[in-house]
Amino acid sequence: MPETFRNRIDACQQRVDAYLDEVLPLAQTTPRRLHEAMRYAVFNGGKRVRPLLVYAAGECVGASVDRLDAPAAAIELIHAFSLVHDDLPAMDDDDLRRGKPTVHIQYDEATAILAADALVPLAFSVLAKLDVAAATRVTLVQLLADACGSIGMTGGQAIDLAAEGQTLDLPTLEHMYALKTGALIHASIVSACQLREDLPAEDYEALDAFGRDIGIAFQIKDDILDIEGETHVIGKPSGSDLKLGKATYPALFGLEASRARCNELLSSAIGRLDRFGDAAAPLEWLAGYIVERGQ
Amino acid sequence: MPETFRNRIDACQQRVDAYLDEVLPLAQTTPRRLHEAMRYAVFNGGKRVRPLLVYAAGECVGASVDRLDAPAAAIELIHAFSLVHDDLPAMDDDDLRRGKPTVHIQYDEATAILAADALVPLAFSVLAKLDVAAATRVTLVQLLADACGSIGMTGGQAIDLAAEGQTLDLPTLEHMYALKTGALIHASIVSACQLREDLPAEDYEALDAFGRDIGIAFQIKDDILDIEGETHVIGKPSGSDLKLGKATYPALFGLEASRARCNELLSSAIGRLDRFGDAAAPLEWLAGYIVERGQ
Repeated sequence: MPETFRNRIDACQQRVDAYLDEVLPLAQTTPRRLHEAMRYAVFNGGKRVRPLLVYAAGECVGASVDRLDAPAAAIELIHAFSLVHDDLPAMDDDDLRRGKPTVHIQYDEATAILAADALVPLAFSVLAKLDVAAATRVTLVQLLADACGSIGMTGGQAIDLAAEGQTLDLPTLEHMYALKTGALIHASIVSACQLREDLPAEDYEALDAFGRDIGIAFQIKDDILDIEGETHVIGKPSGSDLKLGKATYPALFGLEASRARCNELLSSAIGRLDRFGDAAAPLEWLAGYIVERGQ
Repeated sequence: MPETFRNRIDACQQRVDAYLDEVLPLAQTTPRRLHEAMRYAVFNGGKRVRPLLVYAAGECVGASVDRLDAPAAAIELIHAFSLVHDDLPAMDDDDLRRGKPTVHIQYDEATAILAADALVPLAFSVLAKLDVAAATRVTLVQLLADACGSIGMTGGQAIDLAAEGQTLDLPTLEHMYALKTGALIHASIVSACQLREDLPAEDYEALDAFGRDIGIAFQIKDDILDIEGETHVIGKPSGSDLKLGKATYPALFGLEASRARCNELLSSAIGRLDRFGDAAAPLEWLAGYIVERGQ
């Protein structure tokens, strides 16, 4: 990893973490157990890939970095919410995430459900408070609502659960990936675009397509890691998707085809960035990281 | 019930139901099971008390009725979401609601969690799309986010769960009620106020206070009904709060004190409406209904 990117990533992670710390109610605020669990869910050792994408896309289009904290944090809050519910006994029933007890193990199931539930309105509140034109805030609210609703992330999760033990064809599988993981990744990119006034339509379209490609690639890579990874590296027992009979790219089409599709999506995504020149370097690097990461 | 109010209530219920039917994805839309469950959760035979309050408060301040559908529907979507999660095995573990199987019984637990999760962004989306100034939409988003977050409804639910088997003092109990039930009732009133431009501050303050009083009264009445009611009337086994060791007004202070507090809150609430004259008649009638209803 080039030193400049490592520094940049550290700075962005610290930036969004400081912002999240500011907007989350203090753990001492009543109801304490709920607020503790919300913080436990959010400060979970995550890599903050979605916020990194928000900052990188913002840099690509020339948006002011101060305006990017709110969408970066809002999207991470929604991501954290989804992980807590995904881990519940009625869903994937995972006891560990990134090597730590999941929220329902660390606290209890009711607290996990409610803590995650409370992260969602907080995300919308963060967007509503952003210091930009009200019309822009409304657009950000709309983008986030679409990305996490029944025709976005939550819909993808429902298709995923229904597909356990099923054989899906390629378009159905990629549609599920586009919703389950892609919708929020895509929202990270296009939300940043809203914060640059007068962005040319062609620039928006290029980043819109970039976001779609990289969202699907991210999920395929996740599935590859689930098979290849060791428990101590990915933080949950490896092969747990296979055990659940999950419909995944590697399970249905094999590891080789999965890697090939990942690389194809990466090439396509990076091709979209040509028009932006050097301003797209962080985004290009992140796209490569998403496909080549070891965990 | 006076005939005019019965007609008005029927008309408002039909109005919000038609609007909800329009904004909810069709049951045939993929993922079908999720969308079916979302509709099952929303079209649940509920009385639509919160939408009725939105329309009545809007009439009180002279807001155009066309603008009230979105906040009425959004608040009802959030209410439906909260009922589904409250009924889960990890929470109140209820099999019946209004005489029908709860969502996790009718479908399954994972579908119930996700269907409710998907109602929340839909609520924010409905507000974001309303045909009023963007600044007003942002205010409505902020009011709803505060009302359903960790310092609103979800926080109240967390305090409620933590209080099982505990003895609470009166201020703590009323604070829990103000969050758990009051926050969304209050949001119904003040959201409607946003849709009348240039509402005098004194009018807003009067309705703000009305909303707080009536929200707490609503929950006390619910608890009284839980003890008094018969299963076939309230749709769940009577006395189920007592069985769970819930901290409720009647359990802690007795039925008589509960009825007295309800009436006190009703008087206080109705006193706030004096300044509005006849325009407040529907709101006054609804306040009475909330305290005197038999189910």
